Amino acid sequence: MRARDLAEPFPTVSLDDQALDAARLLAEHRLPGLLVLDESGHPRAVLPASQLVRMLVPGYVIEDPSLAAVIDEAHADRLCDELTGVSVRECLPRDAPAPAVASDDDTAVEVAALMARTRSPLVAVVQRPAGRRGTSGGGELLGVITASNLLHRLLGNA
Amino acid sequence: MRARDLAEPFPTVSLDDQALDAARLLAEHRLPGLLVLDESGHPRAVLPASQLVRMLVPGYVIEDPSLAAVIDEAHADRLCDELTGVSVRECLPRDAPAPAVASDDDTAVEVAALMARTRSPLVAVVQRPAGRRGTSGGGELLGVITASNLLHRLLGNA
Repeated sequence: MRARDLAEPFPTVSLDDQALDAARLLAEHRLPGLLVLDESGHPRAVLPASQLVRMLVPGYVIEDPSLAAVIDEAHADRLCDELTGVSVRECLPRDAPAPAVASDDDTAVEVAALMARTRSPLVAVVQRPAGRRGTSGGGELLGVITASNLLHRLLGNA
Repeated sequence: MRARDLAEPFPTVSLDDQALDAARLLAEHRLPGLLVLDESGHPRAVLPASQLVRMLVPGYVIEDPSLAAVIDEAHADRLCDELTGVSVRECLPRDAPAPAVASDDDTAVEVAALMARTRSPLVAVVQRPAGRRGTSGGGELLGVITASNLLHRLLGNA
């Protein structure tokens, strides 16, 4: 069982996509995060849904949660307006780590080890140019292996 | 819109449940994590799927990923055997943070602020005894609000 056999389609956005569209994609698929691709289509980061929620909340409320209660229902209904005109790039934390990336011919154990080491809920699978290895995002994206899907496949024999 | 209106059913396990059953639950629902309840049914921790994957991988492979390639396919098929006889309690990292917990009458903005502050992909909603507030896990569990579900509800008006 190789990474290419485990990889599944997964919603992606690019750095210049609108944050509002990213939020809709997350909401529609009920995903905990999206894979963000750079200009070349290589995995660049994972955008957690909680990060988009963070963009909606005024800074003074994050600093002092007791102030959340002063925001009335009418304003709450317009919270998502905060995402209008904002790009995915602007939502990514400055220290957003690069996503875990496996090569298409990595074994299930190599993928599991990568996931365990990075404590990442998903691993992007790319097709490496022959002879090239490593954890950088280069290479064509084939799909994503989530931790729950890996468990699903490994449990098939348990 | 209050936390009680946003809360949805979410799979939970208890500390003494079998890790193998937790893995099956994660795999079946394709979830990134499960909510772990203590002996009194209060939210105690979130068990990430990646943590269960970590339990499958021999320590020497996590230390030195190049050793993953020496594990053959036959052994890979039996990786999930590692979870047999292991409890959820034994899988939780020692430093597993307490889950984010909201009261049933918190507003959507308060839930968003809590999620933003804790960078948590989910918030457990509990019914507080009258007059009691705080972020501890006490109180009966009503359900869970995931970041993507919160976005879904907030986008309803965007």
